[in-house]
Amino acid sequence: METESVLTDTAVEQLDAHWRALNYLAACQLYLRDNPLLTEHLRPEHIKPRLLGHWGTCPGLTLVYTHLNRLISQRDLDTVCVWGPGHGGPAVLAGAWLDGSYGELEPDLGRDLAGMLRLFRRFSTPGGVPSHAAPQVPGSFHEGGELGYSLAHAYGAALDNPGLLVACVIGDGEAETGPLAASWQANTFLDPVHDGAVLPILHLNGYKIANPTVSARLPAEQLDALLRGYGHEPLYVTATLDSDPARVHRDLAAALDLAADRIAGHQRAAREQGERRRPRWPMIVLRTPKGWTGPVEVDGVPVAGTWRAHQVPLTRVREDPARLRQLELWLRSYLPQELFDETGRPRGTVLACVPPGDRRLGANPHANGGRLLRELPLPDLAAFAVPVDKPGAGRHEPTRVLAGLLRQVMADTAERRDFRVVGPDETASNRLAELYDVTDKTWQAELLDTDEHLGPHGRVMEVLSEHLCQGWMEGYVLTGRHGLFSTYEAFAHIVDSMAAQHVKWIGTARTVPWRAPVAALTYLLTSHVWRQDHNGFSHQDPGFVDHILNKSPEVVRVYLPPDANTLLCVADHVLRTRNVVNVVVAGKQQCFDWLDLEEARAHCARGAGIWEWAGTERPDSGPDVVLACAGDVPTQEALAAASLLREHLPEVGVRVVNVVDISRLQPHEEHPHGMTDPEFDALFTRDRPVIFAYHGYPWLIHRLAYRRAVHASLHVRGYKEMGTTTTPFDMVVSNDLDRYRLVMDVIDRVPRLAVRAAAVRQAMEDVRHRHHDWVRAHGVDLPEVAEWSWPE
Amino acid sequence: METESVLTDTAVEQLDAHWRALNYLAACQLYLRDNPLLTEHLRPEHIKPRLLGHWGTCPGLTLVYTHLNRLISQRDLDTVCVWGPGHGGPAVLAGAWLDGSYGELEPDLGRDLAGMLRLFRRFSTPGGVPSHAAPQVPGSFHEGGELGYSLAHAYGAALDNPGLLVACVIGDGEAETGPLAASWQANTFLDPVHDGAVLPILHLNGYKIANPTVSARLPAEQLDALLRGYGHEPLYVTATLDSDPARVHRDLAAALDLAADRIAGHQRAAREQGERRRPRWPMIVLRTPKGWTGPVEVDGVPVAGTWRAHQVPLTRVREDPARLRQLELWLRSYLPQELFDETGRPRGTVLACVPPGDRRLGANPHANGGRLLRELPLPDLAAFAVPVDKPGAGRHEPTRVLAGLLRQVMADTAERRDFRVVGPDETASNRLAELYDVTDKTWQAELLDTDEHLGPHGRVMEVLSEHLCQGWMEGYVLTGRHGLFSTYEAFAHIVDSMAAQHVKWIGTARTVPWRAPVAALTYLLTSHVWRQDHNGFSHQDPGFVDHILNKSPEVVRVYLPPDANTLLCVADHVLRTRNVVNVVVAGKQQCFDWLDLEEARAHCARGAGIWEWAGTERPDSGPDVVLACAGDVPTQEALAAASLLREHLPEVGVRVVNVVDISRLQPHEEHPHGMTDPEFDALFTRDRPVIFAYHGYPWLIHRLAYRRAVHASLHVRGYKEMGTTTTPFDMVVSNDLDRYRLVMDVIDRVPRLAVRAAAVRQAMEDVRHRHHDWVRAHGVDLPEVAEWSWPE
Repeated sequence: METESVLTDTAVEQLDAHWRALNYLAACQLYLRDNPLLTEHLRPEHIKPRLLGHWGTCPGLTLVYTHLNRLISQRDLDTVCVWGPGHGGPAVLAGAWLDGSYGELEPDLGRDLAGMLRLFRRFSTPGGVPSHAAPQVPGSFHEGGELGYSLAHAYGAALDNPGLLVACVIGDGEAETGPLAASWQANTFLDPVHDGAVLPILHLNGYKIANPTVSARLPAEQLDALLRGYGHEPLYVTATLDSDPARVHRDLAAALDLAADRIAGHQRAAREQGERRRPRWPMIVLRTPKGWTGPVEVDGVPVAGTWRAHQVPLTRVREDPARLRQLELWLRSYLPQELFDETGRPRGTVLACVPPGDRRLGANPHANGGRLLRELPLPDLAAFAVPVDKPGAGRHEPTRVLAGLLRQVMADTAERRDFRVVGPDETASNRLAELYDVTDKTWQAELLDTDEHLGPHGRVMEVLSEHLCQGWMEGYVLTGRHGLFSTYEAFAHIVDSMAAQHVKWIGTARTVPWRAPVAALTYLLTSHVWRQDHNGFSHQDPGFVDHILNKSPEVVRVYLPPDANTLLCVADHVLRTRNVVNVVVAGKQQCFDWLDLEEARAHCARGAGIWEWAGTERPDSGPDVVLACAGDVPTQEALAAASLLREHLPEVGVRVVNVVDISRLQPHEEHPHGMTDPEFDALFTRDRPVIFAYHGYPWLIHRLAYRRAVHASLHVRGYKEMGTTTTPFDMVVSNDLDRYRLVMDVIDRVPRLAVRAAAVRQAMEDVRHRHHDWVRAHGVDLPEVAEWSWPE
Repeated sequence: METESVLTDTAVEQLDAHWRALNYLAACQLYLRDNPLLTEHLRPEHIKPRLLGHWGTCPGLTLVYTHLNRLISQRDLDTVCVWGPGHGGPAVLAGAWLDGSYGELEPDLGRDLAGMLRLFRRFSTPGGVPSHAAPQVPGSFHEGGELGYSLAHAYGAALDNPGLLVACVIGDGEAETGPLAASWQANTFLDPVHDGAVLPILHLNGYKIANPTVSARLPAEQLDALLRGYGHEPLYVTATLDSDPARVHRDLAAALDLAADRIAGHQRAAREQGERRRPRWPMIVLRTPKGWTGPVEVDGVPVAGTWRAHQVPLTRVREDPARLRQLELWLRSYLPQELFDETGRPRGTVLACVPPGDRRLGANPHANGGRLLRELPLPDLAAFAVPVDKPGAGRHEPTRVLAGLLRQVMADTAERRDFRVVGPDETASNRLAELYDVTDKTWQAELLDTDEHLGPHGRVMEVLSEHLCQGWMEGYVLTGRHGLFSTYEAFAHIVDSMAAQHVKWIGTARTVPWRAPVAALTYLLTSHVWRQDHNGFSHQDPGFVDHILNKSPEVVRVYLPPDANTLLCVADHVLRTRNVVNVVVAGKQQCFDWLDLEEARAHCARGAGIWEWAGTERPDSGPDVVLACAGDVPTQEALAAASLLREHLPEVGVRVVNVVDISRLQPHEEHPHGMTDPEFDALFTRDRPVIFAYHGYPWLIHRLAYRRAVHASLHVRGYKEMGTTTTPFDMVVSNDLDRYRLVMDVIDRVPRLAVRAAAVRQAMEDVRHRHHDWVRAHGVDLPEVAEWSWPE
């Protein structure tokens, strides 16, 4: 470090007192259920019955917490911090307890002995607070249980928050993950004018669970090249087991001051001097021993500074008096009596660095983003809806119609800047390019003359990393803004795990009283399984819906709008939702318009309904068969089947049911959108054959509906992994979802049909074979299929 | 480039001829269905009815193909190439057709006019060959449809293949993904002594679908720092639209020569001179215009060198005569008559650079790894089995018992080196540390005195990236070796998408006659949902099984061994399987031993069976209720429930059924392991209540069994997303999977029970409440639960 220290000795003492207090509070969370201030010698009954938690990462995180306090106080910064290292919960909880914010949110955790004891007891205890920076942790908007997403969250938070500094501690374990590695390129997308700053703090404590980390063992010049290759100016702060903490405090304070100066300079240059070159943003490389200040050796084996400090460094302290003594010595090494008065209240020295009010890391409203959330301005849908005089007369590309609505929302938030659309290089491919009428794709790197729609201030974000898109969106939404993530349906699986963790976050946050609701994270899954003409098998996978529907029903919502106007209505709905995760599956290819706007509104409000105009049911007797459908292509095939039946077997009473909101199928006890049995039976009957044409894996429908009376006569067609490069209709034929197969299914299941039905069935079979041969000979679909339209 | 060109003018002409031939063959695959050699002017009927495919990446890939041929020929190298750019299929197909390997594998694709025409027609046509380097493509062991996995595959292939050079073309789109970004660190794990070399070729053609790429727009010095930061020595080759191809040929040849020299030097130093420092491996940065040699402008808009060259650069050629002429001019620019004689046979100049026999990229046996596969030496399980005199008398940690078997396999492959165990830093945590008795964790970076079990030649691989672990394993297995991927159950979702793509690869490869079967990719999912005492909700997710079971049934297998000996038997089985993906779910915590080795063998051979010793069924009347279970914790709870019923309601005839192979539940028409209805009914009855305690999401069992007669009376308990940091038993109580709840379920469903049953039910309810209060007061499980054992 070439920078000069600006700290007085008193300031160093104050920082060290704060740091020791945090370390004490963190260590005690792992161990103590009583005797919180060590007013007496430790006895076994003071110790928790199960020692759970992770010490190793804590002293580094507490050091950052202390020094961010100083930086914020000194410069009156608006700052949040993302705590990447998974099990750093005790450090962050300690910080929020010590700055008083925890006690303000949860009054039984005040800064007194009782509050301190509750802090200790609640940690990693049944029904308590987990060991990560979970939703229960003030100041956190990142869990860290699954590693790799901290930096993407940090960038998501910084977007459109020009006054915000987002510090982000990246563990060197986490740094090995793919999502984290991809997140370094996010600085190519950060607008120094309209966005805030991200300050990555790469925390090299050297070890994961049981191994050294790759980045901690890189030669110094290779690491430096790497970080400069990432586009950063690295500032190094190093502590070893032998280091004098005072020197480390001076170094870290100087590094943070320099970083803050650099950031302010870059922002000034861009905002006031019109500088267009991408800044080389600073970052900190903080090297500290794992488990620093904890036990150096246990039974003669090195612990601090090795992977053995990862979890609980001293085990069996209840059973082994020597261990218990060692624990007491360790905890007393922080001099708790100097840090807290006899009532448990932190002394003034300890609190000297703590910023006031909402500037505290535990209280910053950005970390409880619902507090900052504003309703999106949503225009009247009538301006974007397509006219539908009668069903099936016209066709549109649904996502292209949606683009009109999104364009308007983007335009109407031009000043507020609280709406973004992200996607992996597919916004135009997914027919959403109308957005570029009102905003650019954000891009801070070199611009060429041939580039289109790229600009430094755009609010569409495209990078070929679903992980980074997802992480941006999570960080953006959790800090109180709105957005949409559009992506290829098959590749949504790339973020299965991130999506599940976000659902878990929301599910838990719903139970934390002081967490204000945030906007939904909404996926638009398009370029779906049925239309991958040139991509083939690798691009065919409708299973993201199955994955999401395994998660907490309070949080997850899945919609399959069958046409353009229903997609508009669904979009209008999901953009208003809070504390949920929405999945909207919609095609980008030409699709029949079935419903006009008013019909679409009514249909979407119900979530599922009978399309009387499509069926041949006689009002008195109920249907002979229910043709149900969900998804655009299945709806087209089901309606084509209905029209074939109307033509060839008009005596069969067909009821067509379309499902938009797939969770309507679930029992109402299991999902808040679920139908009651009478509601369900009114649509699907209790005993008639139901042929269900579904967009995805057919067993999902069985899984949702297995408790319904009609389940025994429910027959589902859907995607059954018969994928390949082929024509659209060959895809549905290959998977037995085509109109002819559906007609055959009806004939096979409706009893007492006229003899003529057998001939109709054979005719259906024949056209399927004819199609197969035609496609292989001509490479395109049969004309009678390609040109089919809903009859007059 | 500072290197000196060694190519004669003739050599340059030969290379250029080969390259032009590949470009011609690649472009024609997108367009032509007739007139393959342009012996007449193009007419609309010569053009395919649907123009599908991606031209943009092809000319760069063909350039690499040509130059790898030269390098291989000149040095007699054993080389395979991973083609990362997704839609590069035409380039790779062209290469394999031109080197004759395609025609040897599929005789109707010989090097004549008919074969050439079939090559063109088959590409991206219904039922044909997709546009990626799919399993149908000779020389490929990487699909590329989903981007990000090329480099990990390359490293997987290089491991334990000391004589192999694995070239790997990484697209600059792909380079933005997380998995690819994480894969750069793989060189920290490559052993220059026992492993081959990987030569990354970063192909900067500047654009993705619709955007510039991040890496192509980095300032040159930043890109250089980044690649040096990754540990490489970058060698640059640059072509622009104005470049003379001859100059580019000289540059690329020189760069490849230098890279090969460097690699040979590093390997010699390590192998002969005992050099221990990690080499700075060379890599190539190849910058070429996207769509180079294709149309420069279309309708006045630039195409070559921009994103517009991504897919089909000239559309509407059938309809628009001017476009058709432009296409003809483009194709004739390669001078096809110079390249092929009138029979379609490539002329000698074209073939001059092609290596012979198995040295050809299309014929190298490593890319069809089943050809090289040897049976694993698997020892007798008796040496590792735990003794079980009677069920439930002892306990073991199943994965620790498994470690004995794995250790032996590792020891017995010490010379062959064709078995590896990978995992994200959890091998020891997952109780497999016995492996370290016979091998190390591979590590080429700095070693410290405190390190344990790290060494340069180890065959356990740990990195905190599930993506990299998965990619290594795929590359390793697809090149003909064996392995095991052990990981935390919840975090297997991180590789959902990769796993699905591997299943798709295997499913397709099974249909390609010349693909030899490869060893299974096997997951050991441990640290599972029921035992996350200190990790909590984020670590609780049993859904990977659901995801996998959506995929092709011929390929996927899921096993839930209930104890140590069954885990051994399952492991012994899966290590012998071919062309499948196995998921084995097994706990690492103490678990009752239920079956001795012989019983375990018999039980696993059946996949599901009645445990007579655990039930109270009377032989004559059949059971009153079936208590079924799958998974170690559910089995424990089901057996505890059975023992409670035996004690309190001995008159209830209980049958205990345990399921190891979960696909046994599926209809035999749907999964090769599925039971016939009579088999199923013999286990589960057709009409008795079945209470099924399942390890994961309960609806999975419904989805598998909904067609069975007994389904209407099937009641499943499992994980329903009630996760938190808590004790093991509180977890099962929270999810209603506990023994007491199961007894209550039985009482609720068995008709005509004595009045006494109501009191028993109340007692069960009471103990659940008591447990709840106890856990919150004491932080540990009720003693009567914690100390429970199967009764004498």
